[in-house]
Amino acid sequence: MIYFENDYCEGAHPAILQKLLETNMEKHPGYGTDPYCVSAKEKIRKACGCPGAEIFFLTGGTQSNAVVIGSLLRRYEGVLAASTGHVSLHEAGAIEYTGHKVLELPQKDGKIQASALSARLKDYYADKSYEHMVFPGMVYISHPTEYGTLYTRQELEDISAVCAQYDLPLFLDGARLGYGLASDGTDVTLADIARCTSVFYIGGTKVGALCGEAVVFPQKAPPHFFTMVKQQGALLAKGRLLGIQFDTLFTDDLYQKISRNAIETANALKDALRQKGYRFFLETPTNQIFVILENGQMERIGRDVKFGFWEKYDEKHTVVRFATSWGTRMEEIRELIAVLP
Amino acid sequence: MIYFENDYCEGAHPAILQKLLETNMEKHPGYGTDPYCVSAKEKIRKACGCPGAEIFFLTGGTQSNAVVIGSLLRRYEGVLAASTGHVSLHEAGAIEYTGHKVLELPQKDGKIQASALSARLKDYYADKSYEHMVFPGMVYISHPTEYGTLYTRQELEDISAVCAQYDLPLFLDGARLGYGLASDGTDVTLADIARCTSVFYIGGTKVGALCGEAVVFPQKAPPHFFTMVKQQGALLAKGRLLGIQFDTLFTDDLYQKISRNAIETANALKDALRQKGYRFFLETPTNQIFVILENGQMERIGRDVKFGFWEKYDEKHTVVRFATSWGTRMEEIRELIAVLP
Amino acid sequence: MIYFENDYCEGAHPAILQKLLETNMEKHPGYGTDPYCVSAKEKIRKACGCPGAEIFFLTGGTQSNAVVIGSLLRRYEGVLAASTGHVSLHEAGAIEYTGHKVLELPQKDGKIQASALSARLKDYYADKSYEHMVFPGMVYISHPTEYGTLYTRQELEDISAVCAQYDLPLFLDGARLGYGLASDGTDVTLADIARCTSVFYIGGTKVGALCGEAVVFPQKAPPHFFTMVKQQGALLAKGRLLGIQFDTLFTDDLYQKISRNAIETANALKDALRQKGYRFFLETPTNQIFVILENGQMERIGRDVKFGFWEKYDEKHTVVRFATSWGTRMEEIRELIAVLP
Amino acid sequence: MIYFENDYCEGAHPAILQKLLETNMEKHPGYGTDPYCVSAKEKIRKACGCPGAEIFFLTGGTQSNAVVIGSLLRRYEGVLAASTGHVSLHEAGAIEYTGHKVLELPQKDGKIQASALSARLKDYYADKSYEHMVFPGMVYISHPTEYGTLYTRQELEDISAVCAQYDLPLFLDGARLGYGLASDGTDVTLADIARCTSVFYIGGTKVGALCGEAVVFPQKAPPHFFTMVKQQGALLAKGRLLGIQFDTLFTDDLYQKISRNAIETANALKDALRQKGYRFFLETPTNQIFVILENGQMERIGRDVKFGFWEKYDEKHTVVRFATSWGTRMEEIRELIAVLP
Repeated sequence: MIYFENDYCEGAHPAILQKLLETNMEKHPGYGTDPYCVSAKEKIRKACGCPGAEIFFLTGGTQSNAVVIGSLLRRYEGVLAASTGHVSLHEAGAIEYTGHKVLELPQKDGKIQASALSARLKDYYADKSYEHMVFPGMVYISHPTEYGTLYTRQELEDISAVCAQYDLPLFLDGARLGYGLASDGTDVTLADIARCTSVFYIGGTKVGALCGEAVVFPQKAPPHFFTMVKQQGALLAKGRLLGIQFDTLFTDDLYQKISRNAIETANALKDALRQKGYRFFLETPTNQIFVILENGQMERIGRDVKFGFWEKYDEKHTVVRFATSWGTRMEEIRELIAVLP
Repeated sequence: MIYFENDYCEGAHPAILQKLLETNMEKHPGYGTDPYCVSAKEKIRKACGCPGAEIFFLTGGTQSNAVVIGSLLRRYEGVLAASTGHVSLHEAGAIEYTGHKVLELPQKDGKIQASALSARLKDYYADKSYEHMVFPGMVYISHPTEYGTLYTRQELEDISAVCAQYDLPLFLDGARLGYGLASDGTDVTLADIARCTSVFYIGGTKVGALCGEAVVFPQKAPPHFFTMVKQQGALLAKGRLLGIQFDTLFTDDLYQKISRNAIETANALKDALRQKGYRFFLETPTNQIFVILENGQMERIGRDVKFGFWEKYDEKHTVVRFATSWGTRMEEIRELIAVLP
Repeated sequence: MIYFENDYCEGAHPAILQKLLETNMEKHPGYGTDPYCVSAKEKIRKACGCPGAEIFFLTGGTQSNAVVIGSLLRRYEGVLAASTGHVSLHEAGAIEYTGHKVLELPQKDGKIQASALSARLKDYYADKSYEHMVFPGMVYISHPTEYGTLYTRQELEDISAVCAQYDLPLFLDGARLGYGLASDGTDVTLADIARCTSVFYIGGTKVGALCGEAVVFPQKAPPHFFTMVKQQGALLAKGRLLGIQFDTLFTDDLYQKISRNAIETANALKDALRQKGYRFFLETPTNQIFVILENGQMERIGRDVKFGFWEKYDEKHTVVRFATSWGTRMEEIRELIAVLP
Repeated sequence: MIYFENDYCEGAHPAILQKLLETNMEKHPGYGTDPYCVSAKEKIRKACGCPGAEIFFLTGGTQSNAVVIGSLLRRYEGVLAASTGHVSLHEAGAIEYTGHKVLELPQKDGKIQASALSARLKDYYADKSYEHMVFPGMVYISHPTEYGTLYTRQELEDISAVCAQYDLPLFLDGARLGYGLASDGTDVTLADIARCTSVFYIGGTKVGALCGEAVVFPQKAPPHFFTMVKQQGALLAKGRLLGIQFDTLFTDDLYQKISRNAIETANALKDALRQKGYRFFLETPTNQIFVILENGQMERIGRDVKFGFWEKYDEKHTVVRFATSWGTRMEEIRELIAVLP
């Protein structure tokens, strides 16, 4: 069986395991105070160009979203997000569990637009009964989005400007951030993201780590964020597990290099699919490829290949997803191409 | 600096790292459906003598407590726990964050008594206004307790009987369960615990793993526990990280063997402390040793040794904790003894 | 100033005040155990044709919605509701504050359709990752809706059948229920509502009471609903205040009679508006009338008349609402008609 | 049956009903913007000597506690309260439902002491692991307490000073405030309370109103408190119901006058009980009288008199409560005395 179902199917980059082995019997204090966490944070600050950034390591994406949103919002506020956003749909109500509403915005290819955000906020405050409604308290975007698409630098700046106008924190979910930064033709850098947002996270789980996301507050974390992490059950006793992983990923550009592998293998697959006449659901510049398959064809391919079912396209067709990762080998791409009709 | 501050200061048992290395590039589905999770669960079921047990792997102790308690309680119920229980004091309000009250019970050496529990429940239902109060909804105990003490089998059975009488689930926090099971003179086995409780967890973080606790429902998990784990941000995408660790720990009795090391090193240390005339705060049969030091002496020892400050004993004395672990070497014990006056 | 802004602008029906006066110095136990609550419940049971119904009196609509939804849902469930539903928009996040998501359904004139509900539920369970999403746990409808429209008996039965198929409680928000039941041409009776729903409430605040909603569980309330009412701060010490009001409203058909007054005055106003050539935003059979005014005209009318701003229609027009109530006099309708251009 | 079970057994002071009658068909806007709310707030500001106070009217005590505490605390904070406080015991977990822990303080006769509060706060911050615990976020006291006792002005000032030192809001639950202010020998005035606290409420439900508590922020309410009131389902549409009641209670000192009646009737009863040799559980200067009865005697008296069962005293005795109110007549006291053996 050829495996392209998702980008979290392997373990960790070997350099991470190597570092875990080397440091294994060292004794360090817990809860993120070990020297590897300290070093990893310093490297991330440099990579972001934010010497004063406050950084926290959590274990997963839904957890990071719930902790960040639950910590930044005041209790009468909700988070604005694309209707296709991960926080809107696929987190089992984790945001509502913290007491907050997800205020859905229209989206295109997984992205929201500054103009639609601005219109929504204007309408909200124009309504004389707005004190009877949920206040918009922050904005959530994902980059890459759940559809593998990317914001341009201009788009990020425009959304950031609207947020600044309404004094709303902008939060960027970077579960697959590496693949966005390594994408061909993107003009968005880590420093751009740090400049445009109030908080974002650098995904590790899907980009070379066993687990872990680095939550970055470019300016300042909310007071007692550490305690709120604990309160949501998200504080690891052996924080070193996360520190060592991010320290390794941010040494010698490893994060960028392994992300690039996912892009190159995805590009090779996209070229082959295009040549074979497959129909794309949408064009994506990152590691997720969405293809429309006729249902019978889908079933036949499914005998050899594991891919993701995305959504029903129509009665006879389905959108499926092939995902590459930091660990995908060109050889696997060739194998996949060989079995695709 | 000699390090006895806690039992989560090292990485993982080498066999775990070895297994992570061997399986690293295998591709597996996520969220706990990989073959290592399946195999680990089967081994734990055997170890507990519960062929029908439902098992879930979470990452840490506070998380496990918050997810289990938040999932089992109905919204008008609280959890009964010793006033010194981890859920009562040291989880930053994680239980209350799920909307539930911790109903504190009196304790002795960290343990609650069946008789006091029974009296409390009787009084509760005897109060004519009980519908205006928080209903007792489950009972939480830790074994070993936060003070390193252990319940006897009889005590567990008695508490379990009171719970059964009031139809209350009994939840056992086993963050250090290995050290309890490996202790000299305990008559409590894993099978006893599975028999006496509705749910318990087998601690990995403090007993040889990088992270991870195995939550065991000997009979049946509450419906949709998986979704509630996700809702609290506790679901790992790469569930294999936990599966591989517990599969290793429950192969060839590794969990029991490495736990025994903590007991043996602790015993050696206790003997030496006794010979040197140190005063114990309480007698503990497990890996945590609580000693009363005069404050000046505490400061002097603190120059060479890292230990835990526990609580003020009186104006001139402090209770400190020395903890051994699965990874403590006898050589370290000898070093420690050498520097102790 | 002529007042048509809403249907909660007056005090209570005089018969209610009279009864409060008569019984004022009687001494009764609290929390809904007084004889007036008992009597009111019995009269409501009869009116609903449900001898076993369990009934609770709360003070307001948002409160009733939050308590009912927060009590019926399991923690991993959300409530399906029209995107224009009161719970979706105008309750300041009261539902999310209880930890639950409002799952929005498409609406037409404020109503949802059985077919759309059915399709949504089918799609939900067809999605292989549904355990990562919020479970649909109940359905909320309002009758009359926020747009003054009504379900037919057939529509209610169809929605009820879909709910039964998926084992979902159906909850009907009857903040203006009297006006729905008294409407011309409706074929829905109180008994129909009791038969088709798992829980509904009979609005008092907008239909003749000072405050108060009667929450009716035609079959059975969830266990310990009383305690959950208290837990959400919704339990009145002097429950008699609510009991006396509902006892009066359900004596000699008072509720139905005073509701009819709102319909008759609304009908007179609608006729006059039609004759004067006003444009209706939508046709409503109840006490709320939605008219599209040119903005300049709206301003001019606003000098003499208080009405509700509903929503922007286009750049030059606005939807406004005129509401009649149990207390509106025909004389006021004539006054309003006189000043309308 | 002679009724002394509680102080919320009657309706409202007749002047309130009279005012409700007079104003009944006036049309006013909702949600507390009517002229009676405006006027009542102004009168309360004067009575408190706080021209800038922000005031909100809620319906009941548990609700007021849950809304105030849930609005003032940050999510990682808890409320310090006497272990006998209403919020600790008798609110069905309403505080925990808002996500916050009640941090219990030792009490004597229902009161906390400034010195114990200070010691607790000092110990909290002295613990090196305080970031793993619930932060103390505010202090709750009741005056009169649940045991009918009162703080002196000095005690209030001392508690207030400790709160100021730690920057903690002090919240005073005044469900029976009138009876405290009217008590013989108290040196605490409404102005003292306004000066010493960050927020308090003036109880109406137990002091002459049908329902209603006036929440007073002497300086400033938290931002968007109105929306949070709505979010907790505590906003009345017909806010006039509360405005009219408090406007009446604060006209011509009515609140003070009717409170005094409860004290005078209680004093008469206490004198008689003393003469007859009854044993008091504690001395109380307000309207609640706690007497220790032998169980057989309790049963006999219970045939003629309704009183409250408070708590078991020992195997053979029970503490019972007799409560007077604004509405108790001396004639009733005489009747009660006549039947007491």
